[in-house]
Amino acid sequence: MDKPLVIAGRSFQSRLLLGTGKFSSSEAMKRAIEASGSEVVTVALRRVELENPQDSILSAIDTSRYLLLPNTSGARDALEAVRLARLARAAGCEPWVKLEVTPDPHYLLPDPVETLKAAEILIKEGFIVLPYINADPILAKRLEDLGAATVMPLGSPIGSNRGIRTRDSIAIIIEKANVPVVVDAGLGAPSHAAEAMEMGADAVLVNTAIAVAGDPEAMAKAFRKGVEAGREAYLAGLGSTRATAEASSPLTGFLR
Amino acid sequence: MDKPLVIAGRSFQSRLLLGTGKFSSSEAMKRAIEASGSEVVTVALRRVELENPQDSILSAIDTSRYLLLPNTSGARDALEAVRLARLARAAGCEPWVKLEVTPDPHYLLPDPVETLKAAEILIKEGFIVLPYINADPILAKRLEDLGAATVMPLGSPIGSNRGIRTRDSIAIIIEKANVPVVVDAGLGAPSHAAEAMEMGADAVLVNTAIAVAGDPEAMAKAFRKGVEAGREAYLAGLGSTRATAEASSPLTGFLR
Amino acid sequence: MDKPLVIAGRSFQSRLLLGTGKFSSSEAMKRAIEASGSEVVTVALRRVELENPQDSILSAIDTSRYLLLPNTSGARDALEAVRLARLARAAGCEPWVKLEVTPDPHYLLPDPVETLKAAEILIKEGFIVLPYINADPILAKRLEDLGAATVMPLGSPIGSNRGIRTRDSIAIIIEKANVPVVVDAGLGAPSHAAEAMEMGADAVLVNTAIAVAGDPEAMAKAFRKGVEAGREAYLAGLGSTRATAEASSPLTGFLR
Amino acid sequence: MDKPLVIAGRSFQSRLLLGTGKFSSSEAMKRAIEASGSEVVTVALRRVELENPQDSILSAIDTSRYLLLPNTSGARDALEAVRLARLARAAGCEPWVKLEVTPDPHYLLPDPVETLKAAEILIKEGFIVLPYINADPILAKRLEDLGAATVMPLGSPIGSNRGIRTRDSIAIIIEKANVPVVVDAGLGAPSHAAEAMEMGADAVLVNTAIAVAGDPEAMAKAFRKGVEAGREAYLAGLGSTRATAEASSPLTGFLR
Repeated sequence: MDKPLVIAGRSFQSRLLLGTGKFSSSEAMKRAIEASGSEVVTVALRRVELENPQDSILSAIDTSRYLLLPNTSGARDALEAVRLARLARAAGCEPWVKLEVTPDPHYLLPDPVETLKAAEILIKEGFIVLPYINADPILAKRLEDLGAATVMPLGSPIGSNRGIRTRDSIAIIIEKANVPVVVDAGLGAPSHAAEAMEMGADAVLVNTAIAVAGDPEAMAKAFRKGVEAGREAYLAGLGSTRATAEASSPLTGFLR
Repeated sequence: MDKPLVIAGRSFQSRLLLGTGKFSSSEAMKRAIEASGSEVVTVALRRVELENPQDSILSAIDTSRYLLLPNTSGARDALEAVRLARLARAAGCEPWVKLEVTPDPHYLLPDPVETLKAAEILIKEGFIVLPYINADPILAKRLEDLGAATVMPLGSPIGSNRGIRTRDSIAIIIEKANVPVVVDAGLGAPSHAAEAMEMGADAVLVNTAIAVAGDPEAMAKAFRKGVEAGREAYLAGLGSTRATAEASSPLTGFLR
Repeated sequence: MDKPLVIAGRSFQSRLLLGTGKFSSSEAMKRAIEASGSEVVTVALRRVELENPQDSILSAIDTSRYLLLPNTSGARDALEAVRLARLARAAGCEPWVKLEVTPDPHYLLPDPVETLKAAEILIKEGFIVLPYINADPILAKRLEDLGAATVMPLGSPIGSNRGIRTRDSIAIIIEKANVPVVVDAGLGAPSHAAEAMEMGADAVLVNTAIAVAGDPEAMAKAFRKGVEAGREAYLAGLGSTRATAEASSPLTGFLR
Repeated sequence: MDKPLVIAGRSFQSRLLLGTGKFSSSEAMKRAIEASGSEVVTVALRRVELENPQDSILSAIDTSRYLLLPNTSGARDALEAVRLARLARAAGCEPWVKLEVTPDPHYLLPDPVETLKAAEILIKEGFIVLPYINADPILAKRLEDLGAATVMPLGSPIGSNRGIRTRDSIAIIIEKANVPVVVDAGLGAPSHAAEAMEMGADAVLVNTAIAVAGDPEAMAKAFRKGVEAGREAYLAGLGSTRATAEASSPLTGFLR
């Protein structure tokens, strides 16, 4: 039996975190969340009306079943990110925040300096901070040292569906980290999610690939299986790769 | 609901075919077969004693539940392959054969000419022939035209765990084929199997990666999920890849 | 000093073979051939009027400086290819032929069976045969055994500019071959040509990437340098790759 | 004719920068520098005795022909790097510095925060700063905004010979940069260097692959050609890649 994923002392059975952007309706989103088996659902603070109980996104998420993880998507510097996080807490959200600081609107890549700065402030204020970062092993270590609850390196740009294009760096981050590594951004297919888990990542976050799929509910289920497949294979002990072939049907019965 | 995989008129719910080489014991093999959900299990004819009901491999496979698919592993030319197939039928096996002709013992790569020759003979004799081939789209088409029941292009050399290193060619084979395409050889992790299915392959065959895993039963279960994840994602409609990012948290609520 | 490339007993200093399709004019083609340093220029037999000394392509190539290598481009089966080769010899060409048999007009992939058949006939008739093939190590070996002067595996489909997408298979072909290995098709940039040479290929053939470049003459020169760079690096002894870093500036002066 | 590479107002014909670590002797190093055509040679400040005119490395480099670019290799934080740079200037070096801050000895990856901090100090003190960085487009932009003379993103870890494993990120850095982009670290073969130049990089820096080659002088020459090939191809206009084939020998003579 696998042990649970533990983030900041809280345990989760599912290793698939879900984003809520880009769904065509709150109904489609609800069905996808359900099918994904996810226990952590992230919501862009700039998109929701925190004070409005009728907000279409918030009211669609049953917070007794899912951890609502506010994110600072759209923040262009540390101050904007900090302000968004504080607003969420003031409105009654739990003090968890997925920290995103992306000055460039074209590739939405994270800013290492502003992310560190915001993380430092928010951690001091008692937030549980999950920072979205470039696949930079030294930056990941610094954030861990500051007290980040996880590190969330990108596989490829948000919404690009390109998969894990930063494989070498993510492998080093995983090797060195003492907090959970959650591969975020760019995972466009269950095989990408499985690959991350086979490498030893602790979890993945998926949004676009599910939200814009032909059938988001079916895609959510597919990603759930992909994540489980990769995790189980990691635990079962994957073989190493070889340059040459090795007969899978040797002539001498069972191996002894 | 997915439609079943149909090979030569026979329907299968599972799209994961299993090889039986390299397991450490018949007990380990049995548990892995069970966990895989597979309905087609391939056995090297040179390894089994067809006339011996106590043969450790054959007696471990419940042929009322699994299609026993004899393979000609070890055959170095067409005649050896044909002879092995005929022996199997004479001993009471069903007339199905996974055709492997591999003159080179180092990389175990298939011989296109001898494979074609053997396929032609065996199809004329009424066999259901599933040929193992290089990822060669023209060869695949020729085998289909001869009456092969499937084509089974390799992802990478047998037992190498390198995954799909012939992606462009397999994509063309899938595009052109009118018989099921089963990606065979080299699939070393569930992510590789999922990738094949996401590309539109009809099934995959796995052996080494499961047989030599630390825990073969758990790995079989992981591959089962990987295959299902890839298939379901294919059916649910995967998004296309983009060079730039696209915000998964746009500022304007749900897409309209 | 490098030894020359020897094909069928004939020596060449250049390891870059050039195709002549797709140029915008015979003038552009002539300048590109000159700049490439190539000594072997291949011409599609179906495009030229062999009997016509004013043919725009033939008259642009100085056959005292370049080996004119007729190719059977456009042939869809062995018989068409054989007929084209015979016509070329009858018209006074040297008995060299680049054998291309491509039944499918969409990807122009070579047919292994018809290529073998045509090679066998042409070799018996005294032709020097250079077959274009899929990156299939067993097929390459069979052609070598028949007496082919080289093998010419594809990197990716003709004109696709995708580079070497068949790397594992080409590495095996190079390891096993006793005739020159010429990587043909799909090389879209000098880095692709260099990569082939670094792997130990004996030569490369390039056409589209030069012919359709913004400046074909400059591109021909660039490919020439790419081929030389890769060849010289191969001879100079490339280092192996490592997963971790190794300081290039260790603290202890020169290595001892 | 290509325009020269201009860094901080100084022009260079060569786009290949050379590192001096790991050579087996100063004689081998001198010959390799000569063969490379390089005009910028980087030296680890911790390895040389700046005050000693007999220092084996410094005395081997003719500073009337080459720009001696001191680097801070081995510095683990900003202060160490700043101290090394100041020492070099105090000893009479020109105020150029290749800034390397690598806290982790295993992968020698650059620290984004300490690199920024050191860059800021050194630029204020009048140094020409060329920072070695992870392939992080936002960090690159910040360094440019601070006044860095170039940005030098890594292809893969130093000395790993793995080539460009950060391709997507480097493409974005090139797209956005207004200072020269020099791809540094991990380039193990001329094809890697050519690839960087084809992508539009302004220059590359190579050390290990040349220094530890079987024949460093020949390898330096090969890299020189690789860099030139890639640059010239970039200027000549590379074609785009296609999924399908396109006949390089169409049946209708020259394109019109």
